[in-house]
Amino acid sequence: MAITTNFSLTLFFFFFFFFFFLFPLFSNLGLAQVEDPELKTCKHQCLQQHQYSQSDQQQCLQSCELYHHLKQEREKQIEEETPKKKDHSHYHQHQQEEESRERQEEEQEKQEEEDDNPYIFEDSDFHTKVQTEGGRIRVLKNFTQNSKLLQGIQNLRLAILEARPHTFVSPRHFDSDVVLFNMMGRALLGLVKESQTEKFILERGDMMPIPAGTPLYIVNREEREKLFLAMLHIPVSTPGKFEEFFGPGGQDPESVLSAFSQNVLQAALQSPIGKLERLFNQQNEGSIFKISKEQVQALAPRRSYWRPFSGPSRPEFNLFNRRTTYSNEYGRLTEVGPADDKDNLDRLNLMLTLANISQESMSTIHYNSHATKIAVVIDGRGFVQIVCPHVSKAKHEKSGPSYHRISSELKPGKVFVVPQAHPFVLMSSKGQNLLVLCFEINARDNKKFTFAGKDNIVSSLDDNAKELAFNYPSDLVNKIFNRKETFFFPLESPSEERADA
Amino acid sequence: MAITTNFSLTLFFFFFFFFFFLFPLFSNLGLAQVEDPELKTCKHQCLQQHQYSQSDQQQCLQSCELYHHLKQEREKQIEEETPKKKDHSHYHQHQQEEESRERQEEEQEKQEEEDDNPYIFEDSDFHTKVQTEGGRIRVLKNFTQNSKLLQGIQNLRLAILEARPHTFVSPRHFDSDVVLFNMMGRALLGLVKESQTEKFILERGDMMPIPAGTPLYIVNREEREKLFLAMLHIPVSTPGKFEEFFGPGGQDPESVLSAFSQNVLQAALQSPIGKLERLFNQQNEGSIFKISKEQVQALAPRRSYWRPFSGPSRPEFNLFNRRTTYSNEYGRLTEVGPADDKDNLDRLNLMLTLANISQESMSTIHYNSHATKIAVVIDGRGFVQIVCPHVSKAKHEKSGPSYHRISSELKPGKVFVVPQAHPFVLMSSKGQNLLVLCFEINARDNKKFTFAGKDNIVSSLDDNAKELAFNYPSDLVNKIFNRKETFFFPLESPSEERADA
Amino acid sequence: MAITTNFSLTLFFFFFFFFFFLFPLFSNLGLAQVEDPELKTCKHQCLQQHQYSQSDQQQCLQSCELYHHLKQEREKQIEEETPKKKDHSHYHQHQQEEESRERQEEEQEKQEEEDDNPYIFEDSDFHTKVQTEGGRIRVLKNFTQNSKLLQGIQNLRLAILEARPHTFVSPRHFDSDVVLFNMMGRALLGLVKESQTEKFILERGDMMPIPAGTPLYIVNREEREKLFLAMLHIPVSTPGKFEEFFGPGGQDPESVLSAFSQNVLQAALQSPIGKLERLFNQQNEGSIFKISKEQVQALAPRRSYWRPFSGPSRPEFNLFNRRTTYSNEYGRLTEVGPADDKDNLDRLNLMLTLANISQESMSTIHYNSHATKIAVVIDGRGFVQIVCPHVSKAKHEKSGPSYHRISSELKPGKVFVVPQAHPFVLMSSKGQNLLVLCFEINARDNKKFTFAGKDNIVSSLDDNAKELAFNYPSDLVNKIFNRKETFFFPLESPSEERADA
Repeated sequence: MAITTNFSLTLFFFFFFFFFFLFPLFSNLGLAQVEDPELKTCKHQCLQQHQYSQSDQQQCLQSCELYHHLKQEREKQIEEETPKKKDHSHYHQHQQEEESRERQEEEQEKQEEEDDNPYIFEDSDFHTKVQTEGGRIRVLKNFTQNSKLLQGIQNLRLAILEARPHTFVSPRHFDSDVVLFNMMGRALLGLVKESQTEKFILERGDMMPIPAGTPLYIVNREEREKLFLAMLHIPVSTPGKFEEFFGPGGQDPESVLSAFSQNVLQAALQSPIGKLERLFNQQNEGSIFKISKEQVQALAPRRSYWRPFSGPSRPEFNLFNRRTTYSNEYGRLTEVGPADDKDNLDRLNLMLTLANISQESMSTIHYNSHATKIAVVIDGRGFVQIVCPHVSKAKHEKSGPSYHRISSELKPGKVFVVPQAHPFVLMSSKGQNLLVLCFEINARDNKKFTFAGKDNIVSSLDDNAKELAFNYPSDLVNKIFNRKETFFFPLESPSEERADA
Repeated sequence: MAITTNFSLTLFFFFFFFFFFLFPLFSNLGLAQVEDPELKTCKHQCLQQHQYSQSDQQQCLQSCELYHHLKQEREKQIEEETPKKKDHSHYHQHQQEEESRERQEEEQEKQEEEDDNPYIFEDSDFHTKVQTEGGRIRVLKNFTQNSKLLQGIQNLRLAILEARPHTFVSPRHFDSDVVLFNMMGRALLGLVKESQTEKFILERGDMMPIPAGTPLYIVNREEREKLFLAMLHIPVSTPGKFEEFFGPGGQDPESVLSAFSQNVLQAALQSPIGKLERLFNQQNEGSIFKISKEQVQALAPRRSYWRPFSGPSRPEFNLFNRRTTYSNEYGRLTEVGPADDKDNLDRLNLMLTLANISQESMSTIHYNSHATKIAVVIDGRGFVQIVCPHVSKAKHEKSGPSYHRISSELKPGKVFVVPQAHPFVLMSSKGQNLLVLCFEINARDNKKFTFAGKDNIVSSLDDNAKELAFNYPSDLVNKIFNRKETFFFPLESPSEERADA
Repeated sequence: MAITTNFSLTLFFFFFFFFFFLFPLFSNLGLAQVEDPELKTCKHQCLQQHQYSQSDQQQCLQSCELYHHLKQEREKQIEEETPKKKDHSHYHQHQQEEESRERQEEEQEKQEEEDDNPYIFEDSDFHTKVQTEGGRIRVLKNFTQNSKLLQGIQNLRLAILEARPHTFVSPRHFDSDVVLFNMMGRALLGLVKESQTEKFILERGDMMPIPAGTPLYIVNREEREKLFLAMLHIPVSTPGKFEEFFGPGGQDPESVLSAFSQNVLQAALQSPIGKLERLFNQQNEGSIFKISKEQVQALAPRRSYWRPFSGPSRPEFNLFNRRTTYSNEYGRLTEVGPADDKDNLDRLNLMLTLANISQESMSTIHYNSHATKIAVVIDGRGFVQIVCPHVSKAKHEKSGPSYHRISSELKPGKVFVVPQAHPFVLMSSKGQNLLVLCFEINARDNKKFTFAGKDNIVSSLDDNAKELAFNYPSDLVNKIFNRKETFFFPLESPSEERADA
């Protein structure tokens, strides 16, 4: 019930606004894509808002993309649920059997697909853990459910928090360490410390590690835009599982306190049971709910003459502002890792990277020596290719493994994993700046090795070894592998003639 | 056979002494308890011993409690075993079937109970690994056998060593790191170091981490009291399993040496096989056996003019003597953890805490951010309540989880686990000082968060967030949550009138 | 096909050379062994090479032993495969059934054997991962496949690389950290660093830790001798599994690059597809292949006036040259561990030890407190005995476990595991210097405890405890356990008379 209501409300909210916007066709790789009219209108509307700054517009556009995605997924869910209902009421038995057979086949195919794509996650791999009128929290399934090859990251869970404009995400604590990244929007984060609440303003790109057990609340400060936070959960004692505990609360969210016996509560809180029952009966708005503009403003941190330290804190790390590791006109890579944050990222052995690939460009072909990447597309479209020895079905009579390419289209919200030591490449589409957030697990001692660009593996090999390895003259190999750009390149193919010249 | 003999001996030992003692009725929480007459006599006898100091008397009383417990458990075991025998001899088939059905039902119920109580362990969850006339070692079953939720501590095993007065616990080494805590009695611990044996006097409350592989022996130095040691085993290479290796020994305990081939032993020990056979044939007393007063005295460490360093060592940490973390008239909490012992507790990521709750008092409602507690009740009676999102069966249509209360009566010897991030509370009964030892696993970076008393989570929330979270005026919330005491409170409920006044 | 060709080639290579050599009979422990004539000839030939230095001769002899081993194993393989083929063509059904029954019984027996020998690995426990004309890589099966007791080392895999004279082992990287040890031969190791290749000369006994992902190639520099490298793989993210990735390559070994799509390769390497196809079509020699003397010389590192740092590097640790931990006329023990190599061995918590036991000698009976040993016999023959509480089948009515002896003959190439805390002993045969390489897992905080020789456990016990533990006068115990030698002893049994005198 909650889903449908919310759905129509949101539709209303969107139809109220929009018009038309021409989406750049995704023609480069031979794909023609027709954009949803609703999406077009949404985007057009963004550009019409004259009071918006350019970055406001940018955010608005991205919000459209993410919303659109969300909608498609819901429609898919509805479709999937429909035939099941039919099973029990309308259809004749014969039809049922046929359907069931078809479904079996579909499942088989899906199974095969999954076996072929152990590292790519679809929207349907998320389940909705929390859904209220104010927003929702979607959690990606256990990585090992997708493939046993992902054992190395089986303890982790990725969640995406979506909060509608001007909402309050109720105070809670998790039994997991959490690393939070603001993908889109402006948030206020309240962290309960020893005797007070420290308030952080989270801009887009801000990263915050939050130790397990720390009570936190979140506010979407924007009046118009949704807030999207990526949350990597690192469970402390139940591998691959995490739970929410609401302290302050009532009926919904339910307060953990109300589960204690009456005599405990009375003695602990020094209050008669009637008073306590009144307290724990009030909250029924859910764990994410709409608040007024005034309430948003009241929650804003304020520095004052009397309380100079109660003002807003800034998270230590914003991935947009970090000094780049690699940067040229084709892309930028920024990182924050164990060496930057001894307290948290080092303990968690985790690095966050943000790859920002200019339109029609690519990263070099490369691999991480020790780190496995959990990547989330924040913005733009493109492709990923991962090369993998595991899934090859070819019987090899050769002296080494065969390799198989896993590739996937990328669009906002898409999640993929790149296991350590596996070579891969990221590409952006025409007119699409591709923005990918990566959680790099096991980041300590990690090194990146490249296969193209300055100081790549092949050009670093001595000539004699090169010649033996390729069974090809080293000067010809060198011509192919020596190129001056580092890490990011334009996605252009030389013509046979030009290159030979 | 060994069990029955030992049992009658012990009965004799107790009936020889006792009389009558009025046990304070456990009336506060509506429970009327009738004390076993044997237990009464035992306790009375303790109080009659005029040569005893007050602390001697205290220990004697506690020993009665633990003994009583032990006896009840044995009786239960005997009861459980009886019907099984009948199955095979006396009953008609019909009766057997009925019994078997009943037993199935019982098992089902037990199953459900276990599902409901993943964190509480009964006496029947221990199995007796060693049983001799001199004492026994009981080992708690694997934690994950109780519940998959305990995966985080699945590597650990808890054992309780009980040694009768004036006994010798034979030299052995374990393939696990061991943390030993003296719950009751006075012991001598011999640790074999590089070229000599270091002797430690272990008083009640002493804690000793012992690295895997270290040969050790133990002596119960008391002529009248049993010795109770809690031993947390942290297996090094076989998760959740540990083994004993007896070097010195003979037939029983069997020496590991006697398993080597004759030529190995002869060459290593430079002795003909006849001599070696004589050596390894002598010991047949078992791994814990009675020794004379003179033998106990001969084992005592002595400092002399010639050997100034051969005197007794004292363990570095006694949990009764540590500076308290929290202390008031309602209770005291002492701790020793990674920061105190870089060599062992830090490596094991372990903290030991001792909660000493005055009669009719309680701990605050609180949780540990990272540490999971394995708790053993040493003395007194009371209750524990743990709040848990996992076992709730209610289908929630709400935006968060439902919570379920797990509660259990506490008495000496009871074991329970409190998972990290789960709020819980400890309470003592009327006239009962509750003494609980906790092994806190994953102790580094752990913080305690409270829901009542000074600086609790709710009072540390800013007023605006508080008001939103509870949907209740913040001044009313504050009235309930602001209280000056820290961590320990009296277990008293305010009357409706007084509190409203 | 590859197997047979290689086999005949090698046979040819050996028959071309040899004559006759009298192998010292293995009489000490009652075993009469008849040496294979081929092996005799091989060894004789080694001794006839006048241009060889003494150490050259030594290596040559060892190479014979290893080759012989290899051959026996292949013959076994061929035998095993033969009856299977018959099943499908020649035999009648009755015979098939009988055979199948026999095979079942064999398997049962084998099962029992394995249960009895969880710690001993046979040649048949290796599988051949790579096999080319130039050499092969054999990988030991997962340790936990042998026994669940080996969970503590389940993540690790042991591989043996064998490369024929003057061969090139193609550049590749692994998704595992690798610790490489040169068991026999002289190699060149190329490690691809940031912008160049660092070349190491690996002599026998050299140890090299190689971080995951590092591209490496290997050259067997010897014209006549095989190269044998032990490689311990420590997978980073897929426990117990590792994979090879060939960057430079072609058809065989297949280059990972060729699995990327054409547009990726063209854009990354700035070359038209025709050129790239030519490049990735050349290599078809396999991942280990023969190269010419000139090619070997060309690969040799050279220091020059212009490039003073491009000369050969030496690995930091050679286990033959390390200062000994224990050394006397009966044996030598050298070690390199966490304290010596903060960068790698400390991170991997690993120690390498080399035990060199003189002929007819033994190590003391001892155990490691924390480290589990993975041992590979490099040279010589002898025996190992491990004492183990786990596999005992005897129902014990005693107060402790029973122990069982696991023993195995040792010969070059044999692998065995000694779990931490388990007492064991190594012995060499008559005329056989036993050389054993051990990877010690979980090496930090490890201590060795001995049962014989100076400062052993028993002699370090105080006399009163000793007397109680053995139930035997301490002066008699002391006579047996006090011996002055440390760690290595002669393997001689005193006669009953002499010892009693």
